[in-house]
Amino acid sequence: MGKHAAAIAGMKALLGDRLSTSPSAITLHARDEAHYPDTPPDAVAFPKTVEEVSDVVNICARHGCPVVPWGAGTSLEGHALPIRGGVTVDTSLMRQVVHLWGEDLCCAVQPGITREELNTELRTTGLFFPIDPGANATIGGMTATNASGTMAVRYGTMKDNVMGVQVVLADGRIIRTGTRAKKSSSGYDLTRLLVGSEGTLGIITEITLRLQGQPEAISAAVCPFPDVRSVVNSVIRAVQMGLPAARMELVDAVSIKAINSCSDLSMAEVPHLFMEFHGSEAGVAEDAERMAEIVADNGGNGFKWATKAEDRTRLWHARHNAYFAMKSMKPGSVGISTDVCVPISSLARAIEDTIADVEAHGWTAPIVGHVGDGNYHTLFLFDPKNEKDRTLAMKLTHRMNERALALDGTVTGEHGIGIGKMEYMAAEHGEAVSVMAAVKRALDPEGIMNPGKVVEVN
Amino acid sequence: MGKHAAAIAGMKALLGDRLSTSPSAITLHARDEAHYPDTPPDAVAFPKTVEEVSDVVNICARHGCPVVPWGAGTSLEGHALPIRGGVTVDTSLMRQVVHLWGEDLCCAVQPGITREELNTELRTTGLFFPIDPGANATIGGMTATNASGTMAVRYGTMKDNVMGVQVVLADGRIIRTGTRAKKSSSGYDLTRLLVGSEGTLGIITEITLRLQGQPEAISAAVCPFPDVRSVVNSVIRAVQMGLPAARMELVDAVSIKAINSCSDLSMAEVPHLFMEFHGSEAGVAEDAERMAEIVADNGGNGFKWATKAEDRTRLWHARHNAYFAMKSMKPGSVGISTDVCVPISSLARAIEDTIADVEAHGWTAPIVGHVGDGNYHTLFLFDPKNEKDRTLAMKLTHRMNERALALDGTVTGEHGIGIGKMEYMAAEHGEAVSVMAAVKRALDPEGIMNPGKVVEVN
Repeated sequence: MGKHAAAIAGMKALLGDRLSTSPSAITLHARDEAHYPDTPPDAVAFPKTVEEVSDVVNICARHGCPVVPWGAGTSLEGHALPIRGGVTVDTSLMRQVVHLWGEDLCCAVQPGITREELNTELRTTGLFFPIDPGANATIGGMTATNASGTMAVRYGTMKDNVMGVQVVLADGRIIRTGTRAKKSSSGYDLTRLLVGSEGTLGIITEITLRLQGQPEAISAAVCPFPDVRSVVNSVIRAVQMGLPAARMELVDAVSIKAINSCSDLSMAEVPHLFMEFHGSEAGVAEDAERMAEIVADNGGNGFKWATKAEDRTRLWHARHNAYFAMKSMKPGSVGISTDVCVPISSLARAIEDTIADVEAHGWTAPIVGHVGDGNYHTLFLFDPKNEKDRTLAMKLTHRMNERALALDGTVTGEHGIGIGKMEYMAAEHGEAVSVMAAVKRALDPEGIMNPGKVVEVN
Repeated sequence: MGKHAAAIAGMKALLGDRLSTSPSAITLHARDEAHYPDTPPDAVAFPKTVEEVSDVVNICARHGCPVVPWGAGTSLEGHALPIRGGVTVDTSLMRQVVHLWGEDLCCAVQPGITREELNTELRTTGLFFPIDPGANATIGGMTATNASGTMAVRYGTMKDNVMGVQVVLADGRIIRTGTRAKKSSSGYDLTRLLVGSEGTLGIITEITLRLQGQPEAISAAVCPFPDVRSVVNSVIRAVQMGLPAARMELVDAVSIKAINSCSDLSMAEVPHLFMEFHGSEAGVAEDAERMAEIVADNGGNGFKWATKAEDRTRLWHARHNAYFAMKSMKPGSVGISTDVCVPISSLARAIEDTIADVEAHGWTAPIVGHVGDGNYHTLFLFDPKNEKDRTLAMKLTHRMNERALALDGTVTGEHGIGIGKMEYMAAEHGEAVSVMAAVKRALDPEGIMNPGKVVEVN
C-alpha cells in the first residue's frame, strides 16, 4: 500500500464506490490541458455533498494527505495535477443549480456544473451567465482560477461575478462568504480571496453567481486589418469612447489560416477583429455604426456584419475552435497555451515583439487576444518527443512572460498560476508574495490543500 | 507623559513639527461623522512619503503603539477613532496624482487626495473618476472602506475600480499589490483583501485607480411616485432589461420635504426616483425613452427631464445635500446615518418595514437609497443630550440591520464596519469571521493596526 493508505481506507469507508483507485479513474485525473507529464493521484473521491467534502478533508487532515480539487480538467497550467500525490476530489457528482433568484439576477450552483450546462438550465429564464473562457469548464474550476474570456470586456471576470462561495477549509470547517446583496463593505473580502486561489485555501462547494438579462439584440461583426497594431488601436479608441462592446477579439493571421483550414470560412490571412454588441435593437445598431467608423479610421477595411444568428454562431464557433483547429494542424502535438495581460497601451508592442521573437526562431505560433482587456494568448505546438522544440517553446513562453512584466503587466490574465507560472510570482509581486504565503499558512497550516501551487510555503 | 511617550518621542525625532500633540490637532482627529463621544489620539503624524509612513509604523511596532490612518474624517461608523489610543496617521500631506496613464484609463494617487480634487485634476484629460459617496472623502479613505455611492450601479464600487495599492504593513514593510493590467489571475487577490480592510491590515499609501472616459452626453430625470414600492419595481425592471443607468436614486417623502425646505425646489412630498444616464446623444435619448415607459408602467407620474447641465447639477446637489438639509431641520442634533444592502427583490419590503417601525415609534427618519444596488440609508437625528432618543435611534438602527440579515443582505453596503457594526459580524458571516481573524493575526500579529475595528482578535 502507498503512502496515503490510511487516508484512502478512511475515505473508502465513507464513500464506498465513490472512492476510486481504479487505473481508469487515476489515469483520467493525471493530466489537464497543459503539457506536463502524467501525475496520477493516489485515489479519486467523488463526493455528493458538502458534508462529504468536509469529511474527506478531515480524513486527509488527520493523515497529512494532500487534497486536490478537480472540475473538468481544462486548466492550462497544471493547477489540478496532484504533484505531491494524495486524493483528487472530483466534483462531477455535484452539478446542481441549487437556487435561482430570477428577480435578483443571481443563482447558487454546485461546483461541478459546467458553464454550458448552466446556460442550458437558464435558457427559459431570460437570464444568462456571461463568463466564457472558451472551454466548457466547470463553474467551480472557473471560480478557483478566476476565469474570464471573450466577454470579460463587458461583463467582467469571475471576480466580478461571484457574489459568494461556500468553502471547505483545510480543517474541514464549512464557511460561507458574501451575501446576496449586490455589494458589501462588511469585513474582509474572503470571496475574492478565494476566487483565484486554485484550491490552495479550501475546496469550493457552492458558488453564488451574478447573472445577466439576455440582451434584446445581439449583433456581431468582423473586420480584416493590415497589422496587429491597427486592431489594437481601434480597440483602444473604442474603450476610450466607452463603446460598450461585449466582445472584441484579435485573431491573428496564423490563427485565421488555421480557422480557414478547419471550416468553410475563407477569410483573408491577415489579423482580424471579431466583435459583438449586446443591447437594444437601436443601441446595437448605433454601436455598430460607431465601431465601423473607428475601425475605418484605424486602417480596418472590409467591416462586415453578421446580422443573422447562424452567421454569428459560425463566427464565434470558429473563434472558439481556433485552439483545436491549430492543434489539428500538427497531429500528435502537445501545446503550451500561455496567457499574459498588459496595459492596453502596451498591447500592440507586446504582441509585435512576441511575433518577432517567434519568427526569429523560424517558428509560427498563433495569437488570439481579448484585446479590450490587454490580454493575449499564444499556442506553441510541438511533438512531445522533440526535446529541442519543447525547450524552444518554453523559452519563447518565458520571454513572453518577462515582456509582460516589463510592461507593468501580469504573467496571467485568466489562466492562473498552477505550477507553470510559479517561477514568476516573486518578479510580479515582490515582497507581496510573502503576504500571500502568510495567508496560506494561516488558512492551511499543514499545507494539505493543493500543495505546491500558486505560492510555495516552507 | 502618557502610555505611548516613547513612540511619540521617536516619531517627533523623525517628523519634527509634523508630529503634533497640540490640542487642536488632537481635537480635530477625535471624531468622524459618526455619533460617538470624542476619542482623542495621543498624537497625530503628518507623513509626506511612504518611507515616513513605514518609519512611523516601525516605531509604533517597536513600542506596541496603535496606528490609526485618517483621511477626511467623513467615516460614519467610527472607523478612524483611536479607541485604544496611539497615533493617528493623517494623510493630508500626501495628496498628489503620482501618475496618469491616459491611454490606459488609469492613474496612481496618494491616499490624501479627495475625490473632488482628483476630478478637478482630471478635468482636461477627458477622463473622470466615477465613485461618488456624497462626502468629499479622500481616495485613501474610500479605498479603506470600499466606498461606492450613487454611481456604483453603473461603475461599480471601489473594489471594482482599485487596480492595486501600495501598503505599509504592520512590520513596516512596503508592498505593492496588483498590476496595471486590467485583469489578473496571478496569486491571491491582496488588492481586494486590502480594499475595505479599514486600516486594520496596513496603511494604504498609494492607489492605482481605473478611470472612465467622460460620457459624450449626460441626461438626468426625476419622477414622483405614489409609494416606495413603485420606485423599487421600476428600478428592478430597468435592471432586468439591462438599461445602463448611471444613477437611480430613491429619495423618500421625508427627504424631499427636507430638500424643499433648504433649496428653491418645490417637489411633491412623495417618494421620488432621481435618474441619470451616460452615453452617446442617441444612446441617452433612447435610455430616457425606455425608462419613461418603465416608470409609467410602474405608477410613476410626472417624469421630467433635466436636459440642461445647470438643472442636472441642481438636482444632484439637492440629493447630495439631503444629509445636511436633514441635519439643519434639527439644529444641534447628532445623527446615526446607517446603511444596509439587500437583494433588490427584498428592497421594497425592507424599506417599508423600516418606515413602519420608525412611524410606530412616532418618529420620522429620512430614507435615501441607491436602489439599483439594493442599498439604502436612514438618518436618525437626535439631541445628543437626550438619552431616550439616542436609545430609540440605536434600537431602530439595530432592527434595520437585523432586517437586512434576515433578508440575505449585509449590514453595510458601503459605509463599512468600523466600531458601529462589529456586533453583527458573527450574525452576517458566521464561522467565516474566524477566517478574517486568522488573516488579521497573520498580517498584524501584535494587533497595532487600527485595533478594535472590523474583527476582534484575542
